[in-house]
Amino acid sequence: MYKVKVYVTLRESVLDPQGTAVKGALHSLSFQDVQDVRIGKYMELTIADTAADVDALVRDMCEKLLTNVVMEDYRYEIEEVVAQ
Amino acid sequence: MYKVKVYVTLRESVLDPQGTAVKGALHSLSFQDVQDVRIGKYMELTIADTAADVDALVRDMCEKLLTNVVMEDYRYEIEEVVAQ
Repeated sequence: MYKVKVYVTLRESVLDPQGTAVKGALHSLSFQDVQDVRIGKYMELTIADTAADVDALVRDMCEKLLTNVVMEDYRYEIEEVVAQ
Repeated sequence: MYKVKVYVTLRESVLDPQGTAVKGALHSLSFQDVQDVRIGKYMELTIADTAADVDALVRDMCEKLLTNVVMEDYRYEIEEVVAQ
């Protein structure tokens, strides 16, 4: 079994209104030291042993569904878990 | 300057309808090897050097705004960045 962690973030060049809103909220709670906030998605996938090439599979899923490749970047970590 | 990465995930006991929907979509795209999907939030914060205790600051921000402590767990990584 594989545990895959996928991190999806907006490209640097893309405006992040959600991040801007959170920054404003943090400032209103007097967290003035916060200079910037970028919000992204974090996904944990469990993949069966039957998967042949997990790396290619995860890239394929990211490109087809999990990310908007025009506006977002993604990176992932694959961890093999030995079933108890 | 500090770069902080915050990972927010739903507690294991909490149902994740978004994750269930994504799993269904992946299956319909014939990614049958996917057994489970959990969706969370990923945030990148930039914090000024003026912050005294960054660890306490990040915990405070997580508890007050960035996470719903009833339903979500969070973890974070702090990286000090030397300004060029």
